[in-house]
Amino acid sequence: MARKTMVKCPDRKGVIAALAQLLYGLGCNILASEQFTAAEGVYFQRIRFDLSDIVVGTANVSVLERAVSEVADRFGMEWKLFYDNKVKRVAILVSRMDHCLYDILIRHRAGELRCEIPIIISNHPDLEGVAASFGVPFRCLPLAKGSGPEGKAAQEAQVEALLQEMDIDLLVLARYMQIFSEDFCSRHAKHTINIHHSFLPAFEGAKPYHRAYERGVKVIGATAHYATSELDAGPIIEQDVTRISHRDSVQDMIRKGRDLERLVLARALRAVLSDCVMVYDNRTVVFEA
Amino acid sequence: MARKTMVKCPDRKGVIAALAQLLYGLGCNILASEQFTAAEGVYFQRIRFDLSDIVVGTANVSVLERAVSEVADRFGMEWKLFYDNKVKRVAILVSRMDHCLYDILIRHRAGELRCEIPIIISNHPDLEGVAASFGVPFRCLPLAKGSGPEGKAAQEAQVEALLQEMDIDLLVLARYMQIFSEDFCSRHAKHTINIHHSFLPAFEGAKPYHRAYERGVKVIGATAHYATSELDAGPIIEQDVTRISHRDSVQDMIRKGRDLERLVLARALRAVLSDCVMVYDNRTVVFEA
Amino acid sequence: MARKTMVKCPDRKGVIAALAQLLYGLGCNILASEQFTAAEGVYFQRIRFDLSDIVVGTANVSVLERAVSEVADRFGMEWKLFYDNKVKRVAILVSRMDHCLYDILIRHRAGELRCEIPIIISNHPDLEGVAASFGVPFRCLPLAKGSGPEGKAAQEAQVEALLQEMDIDLLVLARYMQIFSEDFCSRHAKHTINIHHSFLPAFEGAKPYHRAYERGVKVIGATAHYATSELDAGPIIEQDVTRISHRDSVQDMIRKGRDLERLVLARALRAVLSDCVMVYDNRTVVFEA
Amino acid sequence: MARKTMVKCPDRKGVIAALAQLLYGLGCNILASEQFTAAEGVYFQRIRFDLSDIVVGTANVSVLERAVSEVADRFGMEWKLFYDNKVKRVAILVSRMDHCLYDILIRHRAGELRCEIPIIISNHPDLEGVAASFGVPFRCLPLAKGSGPEGKAAQEAQVEALLQEMDIDLLVLARYMQIFSEDFCSRHAKHTINIHHSFLPAFEGAKPYHRAYERGVKVIGATAHYATSELDAGPIIEQDVTRISHRDSVQDMIRKGRDLERLVLARALRAVLSDCVMVYDNRTVVFEA
Repeated sequence: MARKTMVKCPDRKGVIAALAQLLYGLGCNILASEQFTAAEGVYFQRIRFDLSDIVVGTANVSVLERAVSEVADRFGMEWKLFYDNKVKRVAILVSRMDHCLYDILIRHRAGELRCEIPIIISNHPDLEGVAASFGVPFRCLPLAKGSGPEGKAAQEAQVEALLQEMDIDLLVLARYMQIFSEDFCSRHAKHTINIHHSFLPAFEGAKPYHRAYERGVKVIGATAHYATSELDAGPIIEQDVTRISHRDSVQDMIRKGRDLERLVLARALRAVLSDCVMVYDNRTVVFEA
Repeated sequence: MARKTMVKCPDRKGVIAALAQLLYGLGCNILASEQFTAAEGVYFQRIRFDLSDIVVGTANVSVLERAVSEVADRFGMEWKLFYDNKVKRVAILVSRMDHCLYDILIRHRAGELRCEIPIIISNHPDLEGVAASFGVPFRCLPLAKGSGPEGKAAQEAQVEALLQEMDIDLLVLARYMQIFSEDFCSRHAKHTINIHHSFLPAFEGAKPYHRAYERGVKVIGATAHYATSELDAGPIIEQDVTRISHRDSVQDMIRKGRDLERLVLARALRAVLSDCVMVYDNRTVVFEA
Repeated sequence: MARKTMVKCPDRKGVIAALAQLLYGLGCNILASEQFTAAEGVYFQRIRFDLSDIVVGTANVSVLERAVSEVADRFGMEWKLFYDNKVKRVAILVSRMDHCLYDILIRHRAGELRCEIPIIISNHPDLEGVAASFGVPFRCLPLAKGSGPEGKAAQEAQVEALLQEMDIDLLVLARYMQIFSEDFCSRHAKHTINIHHSFLPAFEGAKPYHRAYERGVKVIGATAHYATSELDAGPIIEQDVTRISHRDSVQDMIRKGRDLERLVLARALRAVLSDCVMVYDNRTVVFEA
Repeated sequence: MARKTMVKCPDRKGVIAALAQLLYGLGCNILASEQFTAAEGVYFQRIRFDLSDIVVGTANVSVLERAVSEVADRFGMEWKLFYDNKVKRVAILVSRMDHCLYDILIRHRAGELRCEIPIIISNHPDLEGVAASFGVPFRCLPLAKGSGPEGKAAQEAQVEALLQEMDIDLLVLARYMQIFSEDFCSRHAKHTINIHHSFLPAFEGAKPYHRAYERGVKVIGATAHYATSELDAGPIIEQDVTRISHRDSVQDMIRKGRDLERLVLARALRAVLSDCVMVYDNRTVVFEA
């Protein structure tokens, strides 16, 4: 069974050897290893290894974790172990637009995304049929009209409760058109992915295609990022753009942008689900899967 | 001999027919015609036509211009005639970086850019050798160190005088690292192209690659635009981007960006030299060559 | 109501004026016009015009058609009129892969593709559920196992009958893994679009991703083309590619290729449905929508 | 001082640990390490390490080489050590087109390409001035007109002699329009890079842009590959493409292709000069620099 570990520490001699030796000593075969030293002198490594032959059961996992922990202490290392037998549980949050939702569900069914999707949450009932056609539970948690800040807080509490109940590991805001409270965002910052329909940091906030049209840009983009309490300012995981011309109206941009949004979100989601993404200084290291 | 006319007017019935009929009546063969109606109800057209068979000499040009003018009055049309026998005179302004300059000179020699380049102007002597190897006159107009605003104004006046003397139609700021005065910019806004090393409107102003690194973007870009008095806010002619990853340092971005900058500037310059670019509402219509 | 006409003729003086004048004389407002003269001296034009104000009913359509026909005779012109009130009827042919089918159905529902989809035809029952979730009739016409050439001919005859019965204007082979007979292909060559999973002419025929892997290419591609009786050799409508690296296995290519295939097919389909595509010399002219 | 080692062996447990331990034991700091296991069960690794602190001089290099050799024997490993203090000597071969030559020389001067360029060889005198403007020796070795196969063999012998005399490590065919003999190709196959102006395997051989035009493709490409005795069939190092439309004539393709050719060749050359490229089964593994 494959395991992955991701480590981060100051760049020092011997780190690679120590980790390689440790895993070899425990009988683990390293399947893949990728490392990166940032300009700031920080060292990152992701190792995928197999311990199926030798050690079995949780007892041995604790041996492994203790061994890594010891090396970590020596090198001032932050580390995390990921277990492939623990599949992430993903909640998708949507509003009315279906393109990103369809895209994730189709890829999931095709085996591109290694996760469970136990719930789709929306503030509108529109996409219930899409969820149903893929056999995924759908829960509509609407914002009562004119309910003001209190109504918003109440709805957010319902979302929070549902996430707890469902034991969710990862939130995907697949064109969810509501802004969560700072509190909610902080609590979920490390495991919430949002897709924004511009090449950030251009056109943060609302109506980016309208503003792109007004500015007369010749490319439009999409950005998948971790959602933090600061709007559209979280660590960027993936971006892409497509060319447009003066012939493209705002409506054309919205249409062309849909293709971008779903591709960019899907790539980011796949990277996160494969435990390939590390965050530092509001930036990401995205290792190859 | 080919001529081009570009027109702009409110979108009204019969415009196309009127212009086509006019040119046909004068014996001009339409070689190419491209039109576009903006969402705001404004109509743009570019016609390339040949009057070589029938009318010869400037007398006939005035007949043509009078005829267009009459149609223009009828439709509330702005128009401009371009004559292929009048080749544009381009001044290239550079500082110390040679990649855009080389690119323009190589393309010019290869026949990609239909223009004359009577002068290269710089505030530094570094690129004199490059100019010399292509046989283009080079003029160094340095900013005296510590000369303050007065020194800057004096240098700008020298640039201005040189542009007048050389009868320049188009200024290309090929990584010219000086900012001109508002007055200078306004005077030359319609015929000055700048290359900015980011995908505007992201990272306007100084050190865009450093700021791109800090923001952790996954694409970097370049933007060719008309330089107006508002810094990096003029009408965008052409943009493109390239992917980067967490592995790319600021130095890598600068290196990869050089390829983008020269490609984007070259495409914009070619479009402008072919009289394919019209400006409205701080946006451009870029017809195909 | 908008109409479109597409014409093709030898490049001669006065064509544009004649057509513009004709439409203006009939009270039709030209909404868009695009033209192109090929290197071989052939002239192509697409005009989109509105005759809603003035002429009403089929009687006037015949006036229009007679007028165009007269001009056509004068210039040796081939022409075709398209009527926006006649929406094309599209049959989608699939086998077992769902990604292109989903993509078309989602875009159709979103209003991106102006057509009716009265039938989805397959040689396998697998995608019946997808069709059902979009409310589109599905018909499984399987190839009896071991039935040989006769079985194949029988199945093809069933497909043909169904197309006739459904009054189909356009066939879309959305990863339909059967090859039709030369006879069938010839009969439908002008209105059958296929998506091939390589950047043709590289890797014509079967298993292009496997062969791309073996050749060690650094890009993979997809090609939408008119299906003719010569396999994968028909006029190309649209192509695109994506980068790969040595890390990409055949399975990775297949996964990444799915995104390409659906994007390329969708763009081609949209162009064809908008009457933007003309064929000559086994090449296409693709006007902008 | 940095060293690099590239290894290739059957994929077996403990390889990574053994190499990491070996280098650590010799006091070498691993600066970067990248590995890859091909679908065929072959393991590749590239390690960049620093031995400046501890071991000095060639004596210690032999200790290092012996140590690597021992590990290599154990794992059935092929290996090669690269020394950063040994800068590669590159010969550029050109005919009449200057765009790739200029590009390499400009990048070299800008510090993008870590190599020496002691000689530019051509069968035509045209580019002598370009070479001179960068201070690089130029040698014209023309093919006597009508000299037939013997003349060709004689010229090739001159090229061969010059390469020997100049102690050349790498040949770059920067649009060198001559085909070398099978014998010459075999001798230099592992260190000759060619740029071909199509997305191979499409349009191998002569006049690819003309054939691309005839086939009506919507993208054109360029391919940098190791030149082997089989024309345009060697291992591909880098490829890229650019979109074209029906409006692009062969001349337009040639113009747009120039930009592709120089970019693709430059990327391939940089990868090879950084010792990032390994060949197996006529494919390449291209590690990141």
